[in-house]
Amino acid sequence: MEDGVDHLAFERNKAQFDVEDMKIIWAGSRQDFELSDRISRLVASDPAFRKDDRTRLIGRLFKNTLRKAAYAWKRINELRLNEQEAYKLRSFVDQPAFTDLHWGMFVPAIQGQGTDEQQQKWLPLAYGMQIIGCYAQTELGHGSNVQGLETTATFDPKTDEFVIHSPTLTSSKWWPGGLGKISTHAVAYARLIIGGEDHGVHGFIVQLRSLDDHLPLPGITIGDIGMKFGNAAYNTMDNGVLRFDHVRIPRNQMLMRVSQVTREGRYVSSNVPRQLVYGTMVNVRQKIVADASVALSRAVCIATRYSAVRRQFGSHNGGLETQVIDYKTQQARLFPLLASAYAFRFVGGWLKWLYMDVTERLQANDFSTLPEAHACTAGLKSLTTTATADGIEECRKLCGGHGYLCSSGLPELFAVYVPACTYEGDNVVLLLQVARHLMKTVSQLGSGNKPVGTTAYMARVEQLMQYHSDVEKAEDWLKPNVVLEAFEARASRMSVACAQNLSKFANPEEGFQELAADLVDAAVAHCQLIVVSKFIEKLQQDIPGKGVKKQLEVLCSIYALFLLHKHLGDFLSTGCINPKQGSLASEQLRNLYSQVRPNAIALVDAFNYTDHYLGSILGRYDGNVYPKMNEEAWKDPLNDSVVPDGFKEYIQPMLKQQLRNARL
Amino acid sequence: MEDGVDHLAFERNKAQFDVEDMKIIWAGSRQDFELSDRISRLVASDPAFRKDDRTRLIGRLFKNTLRKAAYAWKRINELRLNEQEAYKLRSFVDQPAFTDLHWGMFVPAIQGQGTDEQQQKWLPLAYGMQIIGCYAQTELGHGSNVQGLETTATFDPKTDEFVIHSPTLTSSKWWPGGLGKISTHAVAYARLIIGGEDHGVHGFIVQLRSLDDHLPLPGITIGDIGMKFGNAAYNTMDNGVLRFDHVRIPRNQMLMRVSQVTREGRYVSSNVPRQLVYGTMVNVRQKIVADASVALSRAVCIATRYSAVRRQFGSHNGGLETQVIDYKTQQARLFPLLASAYAFRFVGGWLKWLYMDVTERLQANDFSTLPEAHACTAGLKSLTTTATADGIEECRKLCGGHGYLCSSGLPELFAVYVPACTYEGDNVVLLLQVARHLMKTVSQLGSGNKPVGTTAYMARVEQLMQYHSDVEKAEDWLKPNVVLEAFEARASRMSVACAQNLSKFANPEEGFQELAADLVDAAVAHCQLIVVSKFIEKLQQDIPGKGVKKQLEVLCSIYALFLLHKHLGDFLSTGCINPKQGSLASEQLRNLYSQVRPNAIALVDAFNYTDHYLGSILGRYDGNVYPKMNEEAWKDPLNDSVVPDGFKEYIQPMLKQQLRNARL
Repeated sequence: MEDGVDHLAFERNKAQFDVEDMKIIWAGSRQDFELSDRISRLVASDPAFRKDDRTRLIGRLFKNTLRKAAYAWKRINELRLNEQEAYKLRSFVDQPAFTDLHWGMFVPAIQGQGTDEQQQKWLPLAYGMQIIGCYAQTELGHGSNVQGLETTATFDPKTDEFVIHSPTLTSSKWWPGGLGKISTHAVAYARLIIGGEDHGVHGFIVQLRSLDDHLPLPGITIGDIGMKFGNAAYNTMDNGVLRFDHVRIPRNQMLMRVSQVTREGRYVSSNVPRQLVYGTMVNVRQKIVADASVALSRAVCIATRYSAVRRQFGSHNGGLETQVIDYKTQQARLFPLLASAYAFRFVGGWLKWLYMDVTERLQANDFSTLPEAHACTAGLKSLTTTATADGIEECRKLCGGHGYLCSSGLPELFAVYVPACTYEGDNVVLLLQVARHLMKTVSQLGSGNKPVGTTAYMARVEQLMQYHSDVEKAEDWLKPNVVLEAFEARASRMSVACAQNLSKFANPEEGFQELAADLVDAAVAHCQLIVVSKFIEKLQQDIPGKGVKKQLEVLCSIYALFLLHKHLGDFLSTGCINPKQGSLASEQLRNLYSQVRPNAIALVDAFNYTDHYLGSILGRYDGNVYPKMNEEAWKDPLNDSVVPDGFKEYIQPMLKQQLRNARL
Repeated sequence: MEDGVDHLAFERNKAQFDVEDMKIIWAGSRQDFELSDRISRLVASDPAFRKDDRTRLIGRLFKNTLRKAAYAWKRINELRLNEQEAYKLRSFVDQPAFTDLHWGMFVPAIQGQGTDEQQQKWLPLAYGMQIIGCYAQTELGHGSNVQGLETTATFDPKTDEFVIHSPTLTSSKWWPGGLGKISTHAVAYARLIIGGEDHGVHGFIVQLRSLDDHLPLPGITIGDIGMKFGNAAYNTMDNGVLRFDHVRIPRNQMLMRVSQVTREGRYVSSNVPRQLVYGTMVNVRQKIVADASVALSRAVCIATRYSAVRRQFGSHNGGLETQVIDYKTQQARLFPLLASAYAFRFVGGWLKWLYMDVTERLQANDFSTLPEAHACTAGLKSLTTTATADGIEECRKLCGGHGYLCSSGLPELFAVYVPACTYEGDNVVLLLQVARHLMKTVSQLGSGNKPVGTTAYMARVEQLMQYHSDVEKAEDWLKPNVVLEAFEARASRMSVACAQNLSKFANPEEGFQELAADLVDAAVAHCQLIVVSKFIEKLQQDIPGKGVKKQLEVLCSIYALFLLHKHLGDFLSTGCINPKQGSLASEQLRNLYSQVRPNAIALVDAFNYTDHYLGSILGRYDGNVYPKMNEEAWKDPLNDSVVPDGFKEYIQPMLKQQLRNARL
């Protein structure tokens, strides 16, 4: 609170729970809370990390990213931050940069796919940032279909080298972050060709630029791919294009943990299981789910605080107008997003556990849970990123006209977030993978293969096909089991219906293509069930703090009943509930909105975001919105002069009707 | 086709209808077609109007707008374009500018609210652009609630002047386009105060800047409000902030067509009906609906063409991969948007007729249809702008990763379009107005007041309450009457249900607030019915051209059945259809997607957009996407140097581990 006045104190006093305890719940543990709290304050208090000028850093935005990245690395070293702290610091700097790919993709690729020797050689260089790496997978012509990549790595037995080459325009590497201007090295993916035989796509460590003068090495063409969505957003990142013209690398720069090429040019597989790759995907995607809850909660925090500040209509006798957060239409749009932020937080926490569980099992050569874990993370990545992208834009609209100003923080948040719907698996392609897993699960129900993990409910399919909700009054919808069973019945019936329709096709693959839209719906139903069930599981744990559990119960019910309302067609057409029960759910939902209302501000305070991290005038902790918006406006470069550049050439001749002879 | 090769010719050859005839249907008439075609080519072929560099015009964007606006005005005069042609030219320049507000709001405000004398004085100056005007209504603290504006205009009988004043920070005018740096005059809205009595909000013509040196006049503080969403988008426009410090204007600069202030300070109403204001709103909003179809069709055109160019997966034996437009999931997302673009086009055409009808009636002192027309345009503005904003973003996602590049044109299209959901009436606030009208209509059903216009179906409410769809097979859903009745029954039952629930509240206003979310749903159902019914009416007309009518029938069915699928919960819970009939609708929808598939490219060609207007590499007419994307990428300023600015200061010390002593 810069000026010491808390314009939202009257809202905070309404809260019926202990916000400090809720902060711990949101963070995951006291330790997590303290880590985030400490590092976020460290970043927020250092003027070198200011970001309120970001959208005005016209032409200097990229250079500013380089400065911040270098400064962050300097501070990480000076403060001797550990890996976890360094990760937090980079995330609170809150600006996409080449370092994201270095730490998030390049290093893990070598850790996961490199042999022990390769790791010993390359990781110390990467850990010290003596080299900077990127992850060069997607090409101009291929994104989702990784197996269709065109870049080739041809083994030359004479020199014991691979020749990396881009045979077509569409084989140009396209999009890799950090590639365009900064990376010195890449893990590049290419088709391995030995003696004319194509062994599919493999990863190779390729040096791109000289470590002396930073110029591209011979045979390498690199550039930036140009402006992206948003004023700053990913324009702080040098997403790049890369072409190889017969670039030679030593044989030992193919990542050889899973498959090797021998000196003689023999292709051999190691005894390391290929499934490890899926383990890595589970890890990357669980992080994306965790990030979804962060992004959505930021937007919700901004929209909630501003909705309490903004007043419109409803004044009687010259008194204060109504806070827009008190309108039911505002609540019906905002509170489900608040509930979703919490729901994604908890399912993200659970996914972290799942990844550890999978990793332990892999190490013990137990692959039994891997397909289910893989489908589950793919589905949750899709579900949470789609809902978050849509939710941020909805929050922007909930802020009315002022949400359209960059100073609201919401345009940037949206533009920087939406690629999550596309990268690491297009969200629709991922749902089709989930659907494939579901169809397989259904088809094996009769056999001895019992469904595991998040598909375990399918074992009760016969019972669920008979299910009819016994809800009689609105309060019945507050019972966790009542909600859970309705979601289980809906999901299983949609899957079974798809399986039955598929069986009518002579060619199953043709059927899968034809019914793809229905299969996507079934996958969504399954994924929503997972989120609801993990929220309910969370509430079965011991949750300390005055009133905290009660608030989470309210939010859990809102999340579930909001989905039920939104997908009412599914629940009714599968006969899980009847129209009367649907309308009781809506009635209960309205009631829940009233319950969450006095706690709304405290529930977003519990995210514990600094004003620096939020980066929004509308979302300021102290609610002092209008004076600060006004201050901010005057900083715009257009206000540097009273009469704008161009007035003399273009506007004056217009007003004076002297355009005829003007050169324009 | 710059290079003379049409990479989409094989798609165009598939079309089963005459695209030239469809262009006429889309345009509205041959005359409309020729006007658009001629002016769009004029703009596209003149390098002064190039816009492919727009997102790179960092720091020079606003000046470039001034140049384009001056040049456009010069050309309009040189070519002696009439009003309609000039309007078209400005819209094809395709860049928000101060001229939009001058022609779109300032001039119409004087035309609509000025006396004959005032019009004679001010309009010639405005028509000649000897003055440039803006529309200063919204304030920092008030948008939707116009009656809550705080700016005051106090009559001073001594000097026969009004004193315009901003009494608080929140009374600062905020957002008006063209205000920030360019406008010389404004129509400003302020509370009229005479002798201490508040007569509510009125419009005043106020000079803002000197016509000599363009400096703000005494007592006037003006600035730009800063960066907005998107790389260029509305950042080409000087949305402004304005404060008045006791600024004096002559009494005859209050717009006095409806109410006057006499020399003695008496407030008198003229015999001009106040309802005229609603007529103006009908006009502004019908234009917004027309613009929605343009914006959505641009996005759909880009996504459709690129979906035919892009191939991913499905290659067998090294052959071509599958065009993504052939995937059912792509079709199920894209084709409803294609159908929506056509649906909005036709409902927009009908609204134009409605406005003329209302105007004629007003002139004959017939106000009977005005409330219904007002509700109808409010609802359609809300429905079409929401669907268009969401649809543009969906089209961007349908283009995968490449949709995120500015060169796709889609980020800009989204950022420049979304304010339409907020300006001229927040979309949720407007739906509540529709709901109010519907509740009034229901409450009067028993009385002699027969519902008119788009609410006429309510007269059959008793019959509609008994309705059960008699659909037995998928093809039944192709019958226009079957669809229409289902939509009428759904809409009327949702309205009646709301009315019944409202009647349970002792205080009707409290009930309206409490049930607002349900009322919004009922309003949406009513508005969707309007769009469906106007599409069906269009098809009852004579439609020339080989295969044209057939295509429109397919699109009409897709639009209706897509809505039915999306809102299945409404149709099932109101008992209008049963689950089996819902699933037959989905089956029919899949069938319709297959029918539209071979015609998809020709259906977007029929929009007749130049590549200049589309501004998208993915949407190029000739489909030559990849080489052009590559060319465009290299034009990015970051590619001007091989080693980027900042490398020496920030990256080299990092790589050389010399950061410790670096100044960052």
